[in-house]
Amino acid sequence: MKTIKPLRDKKDMATLLIHCPDKQGILATVTEFLNQNKGNIIYLGQHVDRQEKIFYMRVEWELDGFSIPKEKIGDYFETLIAVPLQMEWKIYFSNHVPRMALFVSKMPHCLFDILSRYTAGEWDVELPIIISNHETLKPVAERFGIDFYYFPITNENKAEQEVAELELLKENNIDFVVLARYMQILSKDFVQNYPNNVINIHHSFLPAFAGAKPYHAAHERGVKIIGATSHYVTSELDGGPIIVQDVTRCSHVDTVQNLIRKGRDLEKIVLSQAVYKHLQRKILVYNNRTVVFN
Amino acid sequence: MKTIKPLRDKKDMATLLIHCPDKQGILATVTEFLNQNKGNIIYLGQHVDRQEKIFYMRVEWELDGFSIPKEKIGDYFETLIAVPLQMEWKIYFSNHVPRMALFVSKMPHCLFDILSRYTAGEWDVELPIIISNHETLKPVAERFGIDFYYFPITNENKAEQEVAELELLKENNIDFVVLARYMQILSKDFVQNYPNNVINIHHSFLPAFAGAKPYHAAHERGVKIIGATSHYVTSELDGGPIIVQDVTRCSHVDTVQNLIRKGRDLEKIVLSQAVYKHLQRKILVYNNRTVVFN
Amino acid sequence: MKTIKPLRDKKDMATLLIHCPDKQGILATVTEFLNQNKGNIIYLGQHVDRQEKIFYMRVEWELDGFSIPKEKIGDYFETLIAVPLQMEWKIYFSNHVPRMALFVSKMPHCLFDILSRYTAGEWDVELPIIISNHETLKPVAERFGIDFYYFPITNENKAEQEVAELELLKENNIDFVVLARYMQILSKDFVQNYPNNVINIHHSFLPAFAGAKPYHAAHERGVKIIGATSHYVTSELDGGPIIVQDVTRCSHVDTVQNLIRKGRDLEKIVLSQAVYKHLQRKILVYNNRTVVFN
Amino acid sequence: MKTIKPLRDKKDMATLLIHCPDKQGILATVTEFLNQNKGNIIYLGQHVDRQEKIFYMRVEWELDGFSIPKEKIGDYFETLIAVPLQMEWKIYFSNHVPRMALFVSKMPHCLFDILSRYTAGEWDVELPIIISNHETLKPVAERFGIDFYYFPITNENKAEQEVAELELLKENNIDFVVLARYMQILSKDFVQNYPNNVINIHHSFLPAFAGAKPYHAAHERGVKIIGATSHYVTSELDGGPIIVQDVTRCSHVDTVQNLIRKGRDLEKIVLSQAVYKHLQRKILVYNNRTVVFN
Repeated sequence: MKTIKPLRDKKDMATLLIHCPDKQGILATVTEFLNQNKGNIIYLGQHVDRQEKIFYMRVEWELDGFSIPKEKIGDYFETLIAVPLQMEWKIYFSNHVPRMALFVSKMPHCLFDILSRYTAGEWDVELPIIISNHETLKPVAERFGIDFYYFPITNENKAEQEVAELELLKENNIDFVVLARYMQILSKDFVQNYPNNVINIHHSFLPAFAGAKPYHAAHERGVKIIGATSHYVTSELDGGPIIVQDVTRCSHVDTVQNLIRKGRDLEKIVLSQAVYKHLQRKILVYNNRTVVFN
Repeated sequence: MKTIKPLRDKKDMATLLIHCPDKQGILATVTEFLNQNKGNIIYLGQHVDRQEKIFYMRVEWELDGFSIPKEKIGDYFETLIAVPLQMEWKIYFSNHVPRMALFVSKMPHCLFDILSRYTAGEWDVELPIIISNHETLKPVAERFGIDFYYFPITNENKAEQEVAELELLKENNIDFVVLARYMQILSKDFVQNYPNNVINIHHSFLPAFAGAKPYHAAHERGVKIIGATSHYVTSELDGGPIIVQDVTRCSHVDTVQNLIRKGRDLEKIVLSQAVYKHLQRKILVYNNRTVVFN
Repeated sequence: MKTIKPLRDKKDMATLLIHCPDKQGILATVTEFLNQNKGNIIYLGQHVDRQEKIFYMRVEWELDGFSIPKEKIGDYFETLIAVPLQMEWKIYFSNHVPRMALFVSKMPHCLFDILSRYTAGEWDVELPIIISNHETLKPVAERFGIDFYYFPITNENKAEQEVAELELLKENNIDFVVLARYMQILSKDFVQNYPNNVINIHHSFLPAFAGAKPYHAAHERGVKIIGATSHYVTSELDGGPIIVQDVTRCSHVDTVQNLIRKGRDLEKIVLSQAVYKHLQRKILVYNNRTVVFN
Repeated sequence: MKTIKPLRDKKDMATLLIHCPDKQGILATVTEFLNQNKGNIIYLGQHVDRQEKIFYMRVEWELDGFSIPKEKIGDYFETLIAVPLQMEWKIYFSNHVPRMALFVSKMPHCLFDILSRYTAGEWDVELPIIISNHETLKPVAERFGIDFYYFPITNENKAEQEVAELELLKENNIDFVVLARYMQILSKDFVQNYPNNVINIHHSFLPAFAGAKPYHAAHERGVKIIGATSHYVTSELDGGPIIVQDVTRCSHVDTVQNLIRKGRDLEKIVLSQAVYKHLQRKILVYNNRTVVFN
């Protein structure tokens, strides 16, 4: 339920994300393909990793007037461009609004931040369900009119509960999952259902202080700066591709409680910035690192 | 209506904020006064402005066991300490929960951020009323169960509407006002009713880009960093004492719309940080500048 | 005199900087031109300002194996590409090491920073002369073995001295000038000899506190963050295109002297980062704003 | 050899650094002691760690007019104040200019930054000797007129060379040592000669990427922010009390070489800021953490 929906310019757009071994002429080939078919490019970002010799590209163009019918673009691109150039690629169409599920536990700050943006119409996303291992935040979900599902997790029922959660995600046609301070580790099996589509927020400047209680560890170590890290979840705990990081200063006057309080502001902004980049299709993952286009 | 109220350690505390001409022994005199009367100091901050020769101090102590009865502390302090040392001072007691009113217009991001913190119990504050010159955000206020008052403003009715607003504030025993992107300039008369108790957020790094449309001006000037500034409102537009500022990087790729989007995150955090400092009684104002204790 | 010269990979490169009215196919046209002539592109950056409808591009390629002889590239590019597309463009060759002149007054921190980088071989630049309106820093120049020229400036002799300075710059084939805290305003005439080739450091976060004594003004205003700004000099004081800005936090405890001390670290880094970008030919100026490529 | 020596206000000052178990009245006791003996306090900083129940204090006062002769202050303070309150304390007198030794290897940026500040008179310090395990930077030392000592280190001669280095430090009455990118680990024995008086710069945001090649590791991990950390050296590698940290943003476009280049600017500023705080006697160490006064 969005109450404050801004008017939006909803031209039909297509976005291609590409990576492939680098060689001369890739960029010209792709832009020529779009130009010749009358695609008006409105954004083009490219990057070459000289060391790994990988070419990355993101291009967005208007579908209005494009010679190739939308449903055939993928097929044509695959045959004419991708196969000869050994590309891996994905295409997205702006008229598909992505569907997001939130996982939360007890802390409300990231949940509130996401619900506020959703309700204010900041993001082009649907948010049909919130899933939690506690009932604490049910009143928040209700207040914003989002369905809330309670899946208590124990060592014994974890596998089974994850199966039920996955089913619920499929039923709701969920495209990606956001862990908004969800204090449970998802199993490898679960994550493999959504590769590069589960976004987590970790409350430290990774790789420092991975794992539990990072603010306590930061205080113990006497650091002068604390941070937060959003990343895609992989099978390695807090080891997935980093999307956004930010930091704030602290000092000897800060207790652990202060660090936790300051950290909340970092966490919610860093997580929401990652979700925004994800929604814009501006992130490519390769070799456990992200390319995040402007 | 707060749904997620954390347990809080609610010992009775008193907080003194003091400034006076600097001379030897002030700090010893004040701490002696508290020690001799068995006040357990749990926070002490002091600062001397060498140039202006002003002494600033904030001290917080437990009332439990303090020899002077709470209602007489002010009297004793005035006579024994403040008059001889030419102090200006204020005392606050932790058992009075401050009462805040919000003024908003159409943009919801600061409102949502404040309501989220209020609901999550991050702040020790009461929030009985929201006032607006537009009806746009009424559904948000209702969703959080806060009374919403609509005061449309025209050149003709402004003075009269402000009188009505002030009446409403008095009826609700409002201690301080937060302008959460309220797009109206309050009259000098209005502000004088709440000296150093009206907090505004300006969407630029003041004093750069005071006044209207700062993001447009920042884009036009081609700055590489944008900012936000929270300050107490005085009779001079965007000229009051600065409380908190923060900035974020931008570049030639950022359109005005991007700056506005990035700026929203700054604005809400910077405003909420100022409100938090204000609630903690950590701000002293002197000579149009703030002393913000740690 | 450079003492610590690192080995450098000195392949012959060409760099094109382009801007023109945006239309379909510019990028493909330029990359096709380079590809067909066997230019191995090693960097490509482009940006379209949708609002102003301007296309910006920077491309760098290896000259080794390029079909068009170096001395004819400009001619061919002008005829075949630039004229049809109404481009403004510049070409740079990596085998021309740019020649820089420094202007200083009495403060040594920016001078030391630049001389250190120069001596350490961080930059690919020649630095034949240092010019000053005071003799204070002559020993520093001598210590680094750079010729130092003293041009005292009065209201009466300013025009005449600038003529002499310009002559000295021409004799030394100076490509660009860096004002490393040079506390004199250069005349419009002087600057017009080096359009977008005079880099200044201003000790504030422009446009806040333009003009004299910005740290005093910042202290007076009670800001919580101070900054520094490097920009190209134009006829408008502190009004030229901004290249790099950076900031650091301050508080009520900071005296003007503290701000000056903290500011020095900002100034020297921000100025040197601007010089580095300039040396890399990564800056395009349009409409008093910069496009700074990654 | 300092060429640009600023005039400095050199009133005789004393500085006390204190920590002790917290209890009521410590602050009043110390300030009373100074007031009664006519010490004009010009700086007072205090902090209580509520969790560890430790009181920290730094106080600086003018010796002119102080009733207790300078050479007896320590004795009186110990007997009258420190013993009853179980204090650990140190006293410093401003007329003793601290003597610093630099250790370097091959990278010049931190060395240049320190020599520049020293020569410009930014710091009140003597710098009689530079020690290195390579001859690379000898010309830099010579240019600034500082004695340079070459101690090549092998696994075999390390213990013996350290003994010789220590002797040289003693001969030169060195108070503290700065490792300005010295790429050798000092032995535990060496460090114990200068407890909390060996300052190192580590080129990462500790505790992330401790040990060798942190920029390579940061690139590999795909972080979005890199940092630098200055700390006192202890027997644990990169594990000593942190003094200053700072960070800068990076992205997928940054190669390892770029990170190294960006990192140099961080390293030199962060190291010099730590040295400045150390020279000002503003750092207290307790429990492997620092209290850094404003």
